[in-house]
Amino acid sequence: MERLKKIGFSKLTSLEDAIKALNNLIKTGPNEKIEITNALNRILAKDIESNLDIPPFERSAMDGYAVIAEDTFGASPKSPKKIKLIGKSEIGEISNSKISKGEATKISTGAAIPKGADAVIKIEDTEIENDKISLYTSIVPGKNVSKKGEDILKGTKVLNAGTELKSEHIALLCALGFDKIEVKCQPKISVFATGDELIEVGNPLEPYKIYNSNTYMISSLVKTYGGFVSRELMLKDNKEIIKNSLMESQSDSQVIIFTGGTSVGTKDYLPEILLENGKIIVHGIAMRPGSPILIGYIDNTLVFCLPGTPVASYIGFLTVVGPTIRKIMACINPDPRIELFATIDRDVPVSGMGYINFLRVKLEKVKEDFKAIPVKLKGSGVLSSLTEADGIVEIPATQEGLKKGSKIMVKLLPK
Amino acid sequence: MERLKKIGFSKLTSLEDAIKALNNLIKTGPNEKIEITNALNRILAKDIESNLDIPPFERSAMDGYAVIAEDTFGASPKSPKKIKLIGKSEIGEISNSKISKGEATKISTGAAIPKGADAVIKIEDTEIENDKISLYTSIVPGKNVSKKGEDILKGTKVLNAGTELKSEHIALLCALGFDKIEVKCQPKISVFATGDELIEVGNPLEPYKIYNSNTYMISSLVKTYGGFVSRELMLKDNKEIIKNSLMESQSDSQVIIFTGGTSVGTKDYLPEILLENGKIIVHGIAMRPGSPILIGYIDNTLVFCLPGTPVASYIGFLTVVGPTIRKIMACINPDPRIELFATIDRDVPVSGMGYINFLRVKLEKVKEDFKAIPVKLKGSGVLSSLTEADGIVEIPATQEGLKKGSKIMVKLLPK
Repeated sequence: MERLKKIGFSKLTSLEDAIKALNNLIKTGPNEKIEITNALNRILAKDIESNLDIPPFERSAMDGYAVIAEDTFGASPKSPKKIKLIGKSEIGEISNSKISKGEATKISTGAAIPKGADAVIKIEDTEIENDKISLYTSIVPGKNVSKKGEDILKGTKVLNAGTELKSEHIALLCALGFDKIEVKCQPKISVFATGDELIEVGNPLEPYKIYNSNTYMISSLVKTYGGFVSRELMLKDNKEIIKNSLMESQSDSQVIIFTGGTSVGTKDYLPEILLENGKIIVHGIAMRPGSPILIGYIDNTLVFCLPGTPVASYIGFLTVVGPTIRKIMACINPDPRIELFATIDRDVPVSGMGYINFLRVKLEKVKEDFKAIPVKLKGSGVLSSLTEADGIVEIPATQEGLKKGSKIMVKLLPK
Repeated sequence: MERLKKIGFSKLTSLEDAIKALNNLIKTGPNEKIEITNALNRILAKDIESNLDIPPFERSAMDGYAVIAEDTFGASPKSPKKIKLIGKSEIGEISNSKISKGEATKISTGAAIPKGADAVIKIEDTEIENDKISLYTSIVPGKNVSKKGEDILKGTKVLNAGTELKSEHIALLCALGFDKIEVKCQPKISVFATGDELIEVGNPLEPYKIYNSNTYMISSLVKTYGGFVSRELMLKDNKEIIKNSLMESQSDSQVIIFTGGTSVGTKDYLPEILLENGKIIVHGIAMRPGSPILIGYIDNTLVFCLPGTPVASYIGFLTVVGPTIRKIMACINPDPRIELFATIDRDVPVSGMGYINFLRVKLEKVKEDFKAIPVKLKGSGVLSSLTEADGIVEIPATQEGLKKGSKIMVKLLPK
């Protein structure tokens, strides 16, 4: 066992290589058909082609009168033109009557343009007395008319498979008439925190123990990344218990996430268990924090063991676990974090090159730029460094640190 | 009625004044206590003060040996120092034995530092044979030791009321032992789309009709902004039906949202109904798109009538409705959208000053900046202008447009 541990940690894998090795294992999951009303934040399974023109007919973009544009030519507030109101163009219908020269129908936004008419004059630019309309402005043909298919032509690809469905996508799918939609199933994820030092929240804290925060944090992240938490448990540092939990959840989970027990401490059983029952593909990644990450699998289930310290665990999730969940759903952007540019407001030396460093920063708006201020670190387990941070800067393993005033890319914390 | 409509639209309110008038009406809603496991994305109701030190005891930040730092002084790979292993410092416990000069205990990350020790030497910097530990490096007192309270001191305010709880906040609350937490209740929202032209999704499209997309879009936005959709219906343009739906939902909703029927078309009954049963505070906002917005109330329920065209409705939601939902929850940032800076890649002339203009843009990363490209507009109802956009630029009512190459602020679409 002493040997295994030494092996595990004598050769740290680069983050890039770890992700490559991991990508080879990821299999895209199945699809399911759901009601459009439940589709928010789900991942679209197939490309969507428009099955109709939008708008599906020529319609008014304004409240006013449907006219023949030529009848308005020369009209002004001082010399209004007069035409005759012959009826109403109701929304959702079309009248049988045809507009002839000198005639108009009253029309609302969204109503079909009546035959003969080629423009809509806004109600504000007119005045009506009985059936005589005074026109106070001149408009060109096509004015305030939405052409059939001007938004989307039938047959156009409108959404790509792998799109995360937001309000605007749902609106578009509904405009095409979809009441159900095929999305990727949410990967089922089991989350375990291991450690004899852990006390479940809501209980009195015993001496030399700490509260379990990792299962709740990781489960929240799983939900944020679109996974489904099927199991969320705290385990004692006991090889049998850990092994049984792993084997049980392996049968119904696409991904199992452990926190703690992955390092080279006395009670770190996970490397052994995984070696005995499955395969380890990465043990130790050249990143800070988060280096004692272990990635492996048992049959078709991916197993991630993240460090027990919350911040390392959080960053490990963002770096390798979260994108995996989204790749299982064939998501176009596996990393949902928003990136923006900022100017770092002080020198950030990096001790120990060869590691990719994850720097937590706070952002401040200064004129037309963001200033990135590193969050004061008081230790690696330090949760306040996350709750105070807006984002994370990745300092490449080949880089000595950051120079004050240099432009950097910040990945905002996932929301 | 003709008079009422003219009044409504002859005086457009500025967006700023509309929001001021609206803010005077918004009342903060009640709190509820929920399980921490359901707290993701909820709004914290009260400030949280730390009820304990984190870490709650002095503990090791590394796997290694708990030592007296002085014993390592002068140690190097060439001339290692030797000390004696006297036991193990188990996680979650503390040994009764005290470390004396020349002694050490094996210790894992997170275990309490034993009495007498003042530093932890990493396992990688040592070698062990029987109970003799060779130390290959010299460390200072305090090395790899997390001090009691170094992350958070007892009594410190750690989270503010009004925080939207994300994974990192939930982790922090759990680290403090909270199994339940007081959050703001989600405002109950009724969503109606009106219009005789609307066909419910899933049905065949009839001539001159369009599919209802607004209830689904607005409901998705309500969920995105943290509200609870209690009703989601499509209504015919019929005064009695609209009035009855309004009065019925008024009794159990904090906010009612209508789309359509708010303009000056023949069948736009909402201004009348609201005037007869409640009060209108804003009818028409000087914004594009979105000007025919109506804001009013009946008893304690806020009523928003948004334009029927989806994009105008969407932007109306983002501008006035969404922030209202979050203000009812006393959220610290009522507008959850992320802002970033970009360079506009072409001139954007604005016709009709006096209106605040909402320009949809696509963002492209160019070197260390974002280029903002206006999405080609083909009409105001154009949903593709949203699905193709990354964000929205607000062009103030006093500004003639945007000059190519100027720096602008982009609000990303809410996610």
